[in-house]
Amino acid sequence: MRIYDIITKKRDKQVLTKEEITYFVNQYASGNIPDYQASALLMAIYLNEMNTEETANLTLAMMHSGDVIDLSKIQGIKVDKHSTGGVGDKTSIALGPMIAACGVPVAKLSGRGLGHTGGTLDKLEAFKGFNFELSEEKFTQSVNDISIAIAGQTANLVPADKKIYALRDVTATVSNKSLISASIMSKKLASGADAIVLDVKCGDGGFMKDYESAKELANIMVRIGDNVGRKTVAIISNMDQPLGNAIGNSLEVIEAIETLKGKGSKELLDLCLELGAQMLILGGKASSKENAIQQLLEVIHSGKAIQKLKDFVQNQGGDISCIDNYSKFPQASIQENILATESGFVHQLHAENIGLASLQLGAGRETKESNIDLSAGIYLHKKIGDKVEKNEVLATIYTNKKEAVESVKQLISNNYTIAAPSIEQPTLIMGFVE
Amino acid sequence: MRIYDIITKKRDKQVLTKEEITYFVNQYASGNIPDYQASALLMAIYLNEMNTEETANLTLAMMHSGDVIDLSKIQGIKVDKHSTGGVGDKTSIALGPMIAACGVPVAKLSGRGLGHTGGTLDKLEAFKGFNFELSEEKFTQSVNDISIAIAGQTANLVPADKKIYALRDVTATVSNKSLISASIMSKKLASGADAIVLDVKCGDGGFMKDYESAKELANIMVRIGDNVGRKTVAIISNMDQPLGNAIGNSLEVIEAIETLKGKGSKELLDLCLELGAQMLILGGKASSKENAIQQLLEVIHSGKAIQKLKDFVQNQGGDISCIDNYSKFPQASIQENILATESGFVHQLHAENIGLASLQLGAGRETKESNIDLSAGIYLHKKIGDKVEKNEVLATIYTNKKEAVESVKQLISNNYTIAAPSIEQPTLIMGFVE
Repeated sequence: MRIYDIITKKRDKQVLTKEEITYFVNQYASGNIPDYQASALLMAIYLNEMNTEETANLTLAMMHSGDVIDLSKIQGIKVDKHSTGGVGDKTSIALGPMIAACGVPVAKLSGRGLGHTGGTLDKLEAFKGFNFELSEEKFTQSVNDISIAIAGQTANLVPADKKIYALRDVTATVSNKSLISASIMSKKLASGADAIVLDVKCGDGGFMKDYESAKELANIMVRIGDNVGRKTVAIISNMDQPLGNAIGNSLEVIEAIETLKGKGSKELLDLCLELGAQMLILGGKASSKENAIQQLLEVIHSGKAIQKLKDFVQNQGGDISCIDNYSKFPQASIQENILATESGFVHQLHAENIGLASLQLGAGRETKESNIDLSAGIYLHKKIGDKVEKNEVLATIYTNKKEAVESVKQLISNNYTIAAPSIEQPTLIMGFVE
Repeated sequence: MRIYDIITKKRDKQVLTKEEITYFVNQYASGNIPDYQASALLMAIYLNEMNTEETANLTLAMMHSGDVIDLSKIQGIKVDKHSTGGVGDKTSIALGPMIAACGVPVAKLSGRGLGHTGGTLDKLEAFKGFNFELSEEKFTQSVNDISIAIAGQTANLVPADKKIYALRDVTATVSNKSLISASIMSKKLASGADAIVLDVKCGDGGFMKDYESAKELANIMVRIGDNVGRKTVAIISNMDQPLGNAIGNSLEVIEAIETLKGKGSKELLDLCLELGAQMLILGGKASSKENAIQQLLEVIHSGKAIQKLKDFVQNQGGDISCIDNYSKFPQASIQENILATESGFVHQLHAENIGLASLQLGAGRETKESNIDLSAGIYLHKKIGDKVEKNEVLATIYTNKKEAVESVKQLISNNYTIAAPSIEQPTLIMGFVE
């Protein structure tokens, strides 16, 4: 088998066999295929596309390029949740304890982020002392004891994805549905969950800008999961503006805590209930969506959910005093308000630009080596549909980078489109695929 | 300017600007763009294509990536000829002296071959002592004195093409009309001729397999030449079977000599007359095709053409005794005949397979480092349309590689399709583009 012939086939719009796809993944991951041939193939895949079977075969080949986690020692149906990535998405931090409090085991492997803010791992580091490096035994024991543990992905989880993604990132071949699906699903499948709930973000701040593309991506991933016997469903949720009010690591953790305390924004709660309901159903704990939502609200109102967060953080060595005293989270030295320059209603608030602004404040990583400032970020007091008076506070920035303040304030201010006519809030839950 | 954005534009079917194309060529040639980004762009160009203006800009950027030869010290209109490459194509060796004998200056830069047989430079090395390394002064003086000189391409002639072609060769991005055109025309334009006659090969043994593709390639190249003020025309000629009877370096030189002596095959003569007529017209030496052909036949019949070959070879230090005594050319130790296994007419004789057979006999290079056996090759006694009796000689092979003999004989034998019904010879000249 020769990579040249595989490139030629895909270039000529032919369907690649399972053997050809597996050869490419394994030989590229092991360094036997040079980057310049891999990137030619990726561009041919990008432009001529892969069908469902090719995408499934790519996913499986990538999944098996490294460790495949065995969660069979953990009792119950393990349900994992994955978001395709957006701005201000702190859902995992609120949802994990909610689900665990309802009795569905959460055995999650998470990664760090290379984006506008950190990943789940970075965000949880806002709890001083939090430890992700759990032995397999400790991980299993934790989930069996308290129904929840979140560990860091091992270096050898889907190594082919790391290498392929790095190449796609510099060759303009990221935004292809098959390649995105295989990247996401290979990691989810290798992480060992029995069932998967996907949150496909749609809009300005997500991979998929329009509903049709998001729906197609969701369909592809759901079919991959089902094909390999892991029940998979997907929510399509709006990402035209950031999710909730907080962007930035500590700020997002606080927003998640508020939700667990029953005091958070309706938007974040709604998304948690929607995703959580599917997780309870797949986990065999609820027979209907209505029943699932009832259970989820109950663990919030009874205090079981916030207690589960405390148990979880404490079990992994984190400081829980900040959960009831937010001043114990890392604090930014600079906090400045951005005021409205006119009255009216917020019509637009592009997620992508807010993400870039938070990156400039220090909340994210520009390269793998960058350090995240856990205290940095943005709090949005006004979102799309909200009424605003001139000189009212639109947003507050938190940072330690004095030099970034003025340009970021300008960027955020320019990013708010305020106009006279009233406008409805955008629909958060746009679709469902099973 | 970022290569990432250029890749993205072509991926999204947008037209690249002159500045973007020039940036890519220069930065890639100078090593500032890595191979993996260049190959992604080349695949995007391959699949989404370039328009005429982009192709012209690519050609010009490549042309200016290295030396641009100035032939202004040579008197007269310099007309160059280029073939897109085929099997058994020894036209340059016969045509150069014919044209020069008619008074059109031939100031040619040639390359070595990486294919079934050598390039023009390799073939001319069959004349012992022949020297291509001419100083600019000697080159100019030779053309002014005897109307013909052929020198080797300098290492710095279109360096961008060398690098881009090497990458295309391993990433399945060779057979794209824009990329082929830019590769050919950048070298022709950098070589400094005032006018260009192209021989676009069409059929099994050429880049372009069908007439429409060959015609489109010819059109693109003619337009590029005309756009930069170098009058360009193209002949489309048949390459379903090898050109003439000889394949291999010395064998082809002998066939060219026979043509110059007025004794060669009608096929090679016809192509030389067709191409030569266009060269005389562009060179201002003939007002019509008929008049040009008359002049070309006259220099053959008068002996001026073969004398011009002798003057040319001698001027560049080559041994001319072999021109009248073919036994002085390098001789192969093994000469074997391939006999017809049945009677009938030759219906097919695929050029590509005959080329591969000659490569196996030692006539070509598999890698840049390979040595060419100047004596090796194949002589085809029978071609498409010829009547054959059982046990008649179809072809003779010449080689020093004993181990290759049996498999090559089998390959050639299998490659002759002989059937009962008579069949016409294929049309050699298929089209003309100006």
